[in-house]
Amino acid sequence: MNVQTETIHLLLPHQSLTRYLAVRAHTLTLAAPLSEEDCAAQSMPDASPVKWHLAHTTWFFETFILERYEANFQPHHPAFRVLFNSYYNGVGDKHARAQRGLLTRPPFDEVLAYRRVVDARIQTLLSQTWSASQQAEINSLLELGLQHEQQHQELILTDVLHLFSRNPLKPAYAATPYAMADLPPALEWLSFDSGVVQVGHEGGGFCFDNEVPRHRQFVEAYALATRLVTNREYLAFVEAGGYEDPALWLSEGWDWVQTQQAAHPLYWQHDRGWHAFTLHGLRPLDLNAALTHVSYFEADAYARWSGARLPTEAEWEHAAQSSVELTQLLGTCWQWTSSSYAAYPGYQTAAGALGEYNGKFMSNQYVLRGSSCVTPVGHARISYRNFFPSSARWQFSGIRLAR
Amino acid sequence: MNVQTETIHLLLPHQSLTRYLAVRAHTLTLAAPLSEEDCAAQSMPDASPVKWHLAHTTWFFETFILERYEANFQPHHPAFRVLFNSYYNGVGDKHARAQRGLLTRPPFDEVLAYRRVVDARIQTLLSQTWSASQQAEINSLLELGLQHEQQHQELILTDVLHLFSRNPLKPAYAATPYAMADLPPALEWLSFDSGVVQVGHEGGGFCFDNEVPRHRQFVEAYALATRLVTNREYLAFVEAGGYEDPALWLSEGWDWVQTQQAAHPLYWQHDRGWHAFTLHGLRPLDLNAALTHVSYFEADAYARWSGARLPTEAEWEHAAQSSVELTQLLGTCWQWTSSSYAAYPGYQTAAGALGEYNGKFMSNQYVLRGSSCVTPVGHARISYRNFFPSSARWQFSGIRLAR
Amino acid sequence: MNVQTETIHLLLPHQSLTRYLAVRAHTLTLAAPLSEEDCAAQSMPDASPVKWHLAHTTWFFETFILERYEANFQPHHPAFRVLFNSYYNGVGDKHARAQRGLLTRPPFDEVLAYRRVVDARIQTLLSQTWSASQQAEINSLLELGLQHEQQHQELILTDVLHLFSRNPLKPAYAATPYAMADLPPALEWLSFDSGVVQVGHEGGGFCFDNEVPRHRQFVEAYALATRLVTNREYLAFVEAGGYEDPALWLSEGWDWVQTQQAAHPLYWQHDRGWHAFTLHGLRPLDLNAALTHVSYFEADAYARWSGARLPTEAEWEHAAQSSVELTQLLGTCWQWTSSSYAAYPGYQTAAGALGEYNGKFMSNQYVLRGSSCVTPVGHARISYRNFFPSSARWQFSGIRLAR
Amino acid sequence: MNVQTETIHLLLPHQSLTRYLAVRAHTLTLAAPLSEEDCAAQSMPDASPVKWHLAHTTWFFETFILERYEANFQPHHPAFRVLFNSYYNGVGDKHARAQRGLLTRPPFDEVLAYRRVVDARIQTLLSQTWSASQQAEINSLLELGLQHEQQHQELILTDVLHLFSRNPLKPAYAATPYAMADLPPALEWLSFDSGVVQVGHEGGGFCFDNEVPRHRQFVEAYALATRLVTNREYLAFVEAGGYEDPALWLSEGWDWVQTQQAAHPLYWQHDRGWHAFTLHGLRPLDLNAALTHVSYFEADAYARWSGARLPTEAEWEHAAQSSVELTQLLGTCWQWTSSSYAAYPGYQTAAGALGEYNGKFMSNQYVLRGSSCVTPVGHARISYRNFFPSSARWQFSGIRLAR
Repeated sequence: MNVQTETIHLLLPHQSLTRYLAVRAHTLTLAAPLSEEDCAAQSMPDASPVKWHLAHTTWFFETFILERYEANFQPHHPAFRVLFNSYYNGVGDKHARAQRGLLTRPPFDEVLAYRRVVDARIQTLLSQTWSASQQAEINSLLELGLQHEQQHQELILTDVLHLFSRNPLKPAYAATPYAMADLPPALEWLSFDSGVVQVGHEGGGFCFDNEVPRHRQFVEAYALATRLVTNREYLAFVEAGGYEDPALWLSEGWDWVQTQQAAHPLYWQHDRGWHAFTLHGLRPLDLNAALTHVSYFEADAYARWSGARLPTEAEWEHAAQSSVELTQLLGTCWQWTSSSYAAYPGYQTAAGALGEYNGKFMSNQYVLRGSSCVTPVGHARISYRNFFPSSARWQFSGIRLAR
Repeated sequence: MNVQTETIHLLLPHQSLTRYLAVRAHTLTLAAPLSEEDCAAQSMPDASPVKWHLAHTTWFFETFILERYEANFQPHHPAFRVLFNSYYNGVGDKHARAQRGLLTRPPFDEVLAYRRVVDARIQTLLSQTWSASQQAEINSLLELGLQHEQQHQELILTDVLHLFSRNPLKPAYAATPYAMADLPPALEWLSFDSGVVQVGHEGGGFCFDNEVPRHRQFVEAYALATRLVTNREYLAFVEAGGYEDPALWLSEGWDWVQTQQAAHPLYWQHDRGWHAFTLHGLRPLDLNAALTHVSYFEADAYARWSGARLPTEAEWEHAAQSSVELTQLLGTCWQWTSSSYAAYPGYQTAAGALGEYNGKFMSNQYVLRGSSCVTPVGHARISYRNFFPSSARWQFSGIRLAR
Repeated sequence: MNVQTETIHLLLPHQSLTRYLAVRAHTLTLAAPLSEEDCAAQSMPDASPVKWHLAHTTWFFETFILERYEANFQPHHPAFRVLFNSYYNGVGDKHARAQRGLLTRPPFDEVLAYRRVVDARIQTLLSQTWSASQQAEINSLLELGLQHEQQHQELILTDVLHLFSRNPLKPAYAATPYAMADLPPALEWLSFDSGVVQVGHEGGGFCFDNEVPRHRQFVEAYALATRLVTNREYLAFVEAGGYEDPALWLSEGWDWVQTQQAAHPLYWQHDRGWHAFTLHGLRPLDLNAALTHVSYFEADAYARWSGARLPTEAEWEHAAQSSVELTQLLGTCWQWTSSSYAAYPGYQTAAGALGEYNGKFMSNQYVLRGSSCVTPVGHARISYRNFFPSSARWQFSGIRLAR
Repeated sequence: MNVQTETIHLLLPHQSLTRYLAVRAHTLTLAAPLSEEDCAAQSMPDASPVKWHLAHTTWFFETFILERYEANFQPHHPAFRVLFNSYYNGVGDKHARAQRGLLTRPPFDEVLAYRRVVDARIQTLLSQTWSASQQAEINSLLELGLQHEQQHQELILTDVLHLFSRNPLKPAYAATPYAMADLPPALEWLSFDSGVVQVGHEGGGFCFDNEVPRHRQFVEAYALATRLVTNREYLAFVEAGGYEDPALWLSEGWDWVQTQQAAHPLYWQHDRGWHAFTLHGLRPLDLNAALTHVSYFEADAYARWSGARLPTEAEWEHAAQSSVELTQLLGTCWQWTSSSYAAYPGYQTAAGALGEYNGKFMSNQYVLRGSSCVTPVGHARISYRNFFPSSARWQFSGIRLAR
């Protein structure tokens, strides 16, 4: 990964190691409430088994750090290079994505052992003496691997939620009580003047390659909603027949509604009142809470119905940089923008397989900004660009309106 | 199930129980080499997870015996009625077949507990006093449930074989050594005269409803091969370009070859010599062993190539009844016949949901006769009618030629 | 084609030619009410454009007669060998079946010219002097070609009916008035004893290879309905909820009902009363007329609902040979039997590509007996074996009950 | 359509009529080389039969002008409202797009009559006296209908090209000789400074609603190729293994390559040298000519391989406005941009069904700029925004590089 800052480069090895061990441990904490069976299943091609996430994140450190820096590198297991490669053509063959749920072997315990072994080898590597440039590159790759693991921490939760939602027993992932949201403030509009704005990551700290170069964009005057759309507001759209009126939908969106027979957000169901399936199991729909688990098509249709529109990512980022009056920017849910995922002017991919991390996905996906309630602490940034196809809705994706 | 004999009806309760416990225990023995993960995965819609087999066979006893005979019957778990119903519309809703692999809950241990509880309730039931007709019906249903469980014992092994075959690690189910077959005797032809023959089950002992009524059929003079086709013989077909010549195939079969890009039996692979994936893992192809894992289309094409044909089920059964010169009738592999699976004259289905056991599958499937190396001991019969679609080949299915 | 009788072999050339010209002319008569556009369209992969039928039947004579017997044979057009080959792998490549509707070239007039040229060349061939064996084989092939053309005459009408049924303008093929059927007699049952019966073609006249050898079958005692099921009778099944009760259907049939959302025969529709789309356009449902356009699944379900079953083809043929009390055997509609399409004992296919005519389709299809209202006069026989997949219903297919 | 200029509003009726009749006549000229069969066939869901284009463009005038302005409006044929509605949900039901090829009725002649009748009714309408505002709106709608018809004029040619490409006879649409291209000048790069630029239509003359509002965008410094990529240049990419190297492709693009087994542009074929299928039939590949018929994925991969990139639409339009040094902007082929098709800031759709003309397609499509060799004379504009999905390549779509 080509974008690392001085701050990261100058980390002392023991600081890196402490962070490494903390992030790695958190992944296991997330898997702790799950059985081995839970960890092995794959509920759809877009989702992956938890065991696969545990192994793939480890494969990332093995492939991009150990293989480059360990003297006399030997792979932990020769088959793992293929089994746990997600999408890096530059690394070689990959196990078919839709068949990750068939990998009952290696067993769960062997994947945990794989994690322990790679952790120990990373620890050894970090204890060695490196030139300044080597140390900087190791630090960069280590941080990239940790950010990558944090992305998969979020996916572990969204994928388990999807798996459990398909189970008629409606199991709960979380044992903790479910807290209902407070009544949100009225939705207000915050206005911004037209002009040339700066977009993209700057300053210290990590970012992904798709967040730079920081560059100029011209935005016309606009206003942004100070908070997210709530379940109550979206329910009004549902009950007003929003899913039955083609005039509200993009042409593709209307096809999607009919093919999917979509009539409400992914995890809503109507059975003696509206309920939503959550990590806490099936719960009465929390009307005050922010709407989540809608597709781009639903977000776009709702915005049109309400006389507004979705923001562009430049509008979102400029507002987020400059205003403290906006709430729910981070930590509630990802927010669909109307911006197709594309390269910033001057974007450069890294050489080799790591160049496949972000760049090759820059077509037919839409950018989501912010972060969600399941994004790991410390992983979010204002300049962060998440992206999913317009039909995806198993992520915690919601709506902030613009006009 | 409508076909039970006096022998079964007169079993003493403790005899029934002994047999019940033995069959039930054997199922767990088959699952013993597998991890919980292995038991939860489903490799294709036709196959089921082992855990599902363990639960479904238990559901069968609960639904068709306990629910009818237990005073104040309460279901073990209300959701199980749907989750573990295979295809009985008369019982109500069913969990979607292709999504059995998503049922990470109930966990494996709960399914084992389900088995124990139902076993105990069956034991209690059998210890009670019943009228003669009640006792006879209970015995009949119990035997049907055990025969049903034995069918699933075979499926457990064929489904695990398929699951493991999809795993790049090529795991072995069986720890025991693999014994290579001895050189088989030369293939000879045993001739039978034309005439009216009797087909169908007769005499004491259990049979399924599709094996009766015993009835008359006229067969023209024919000859049957004294043994099964071997891997060596089939390899000659492969190497002679059998999969490339449309003249050898049924029209549907040729479409199947091209769609599947079929070039050899299901578990064969060519990589520095021919190998076959087996319950013992990947092994060099045993040329002397009987060919297995071919579809009806392959069986038909091989027969045509070799100047012979497949037998009808009447031919197979008549020969099996009357000759001791035929080998490998039972216990090696199922043998495709050219007979489409259909009702015998006068066939009657049972009333209620049990009438769905066999009859509703009587279209577009072909009958296989004999039994296989993974059929439970004591489960096979000369009159047994197994049936699968013409493209199925994950069973131990092979070829006996006729002419 | 291997089955020709002395009668055919001894035809004088001018008798052959007269018949040839009459059959060929009738095909054009059938196309006369259609526009060039009507003749070019293909409404589904199972159906073919009329223009294609006109060309393919011509290709048959060119390929199997002219190419064999003409001195210095030159193809009429080199591309036609591929374009108008239906399914004969032995002749070489074929144009993709589902894309016959894209062949706007050659234009309609060129296909008519192709017919004229081949007719003239056939006429020349027949005027030449041949040895007795050559003359016999030419006569055989000519008759096969004419029978083949008659099969396509029926398909022209069933395919046009399907095409027009998909057109919202509901055009009528036939200009003649539509005559409503008279009230049929009460359905009675004609009984037959058990015993060995003879099945298969015998005596003079043409038959297809799949109708021989005539052979013995044993049939148990049975009874056959003296007439076909009427629309009125089938409507009672529809209105009794026949399409909503899985207990009435084969498992595959129930899947078909749900996938197709089938709720009535193919061309019925309910819109201010029941109507049926016919070659005369959309008409009020003729309750007295024989039911047509049902699949095997529907025929089987109706039979089960009415407490009867479908006959086997041996039952049908034996009854048809021996009784004058049965009505509607020929000329009303094809009658589904419960017999899967399979080879008669001793069946031999012809050598070469003509061996593909019938034999390679002997899997997963069901035999229909009789003939229909659109079968050409003189084409039907008691021993005739028509066959279609169990889901097909664009033919004039109906039900005669047995028990 | 909401965007019309004063120029159009002030046209005298006879000027409007002259233009109307000229555009309408040109459509028939394009159909003249085709048979009725050619005009009825549909080669893929994206393409439409020529007859359907002839009728749909007429439907547009009938629905959006006659229905609004004619006193006592009566539809020409009640079924045509559904049959020839392309995608306007606001107008009501639509005939299924993929089944336009089944509409052998109404016959070709009736569609021509439909055109004549609507033309006459338009002529009558234009001869009447209207208020200034009515006259302005009629003129606007008339011009929109003519621009719409011109779009379909281009589609008639691209759709016929596709249809003929699927025909093994490889028919030629055009009787005129094919002129080989001259050697193009060397590719040079024209540079532009960074800054705020104006994008969108301005000034007199017609434009579509998606070309406005004219607005500001910031572009970084860039350079644009002075001419298009040639077949010779693209052939080098093909021969260098461009279609075999995943590193050159977007992830979706690589999936597309593998699924389509794409190895060259749509109409190229290699058979004793490279050829291309054209409106003049199959021709030796014209190496000097501009590359056409590539998808967005191919355009993107070629650009990456050549060390460049695709331009954004702002870059393309700004350059086109300000430079005379660029060649092949219009009239050669549409040029893929890296801009996802989206609304300009402040974009408003028209009220009613005409609002569906452009806006509802603003997702998952990419903008192409310029115009092609089959775009009608006078239809092209620098601000014109054509758009197609990233996999489409039956249009005349090519590549202009940027960096």
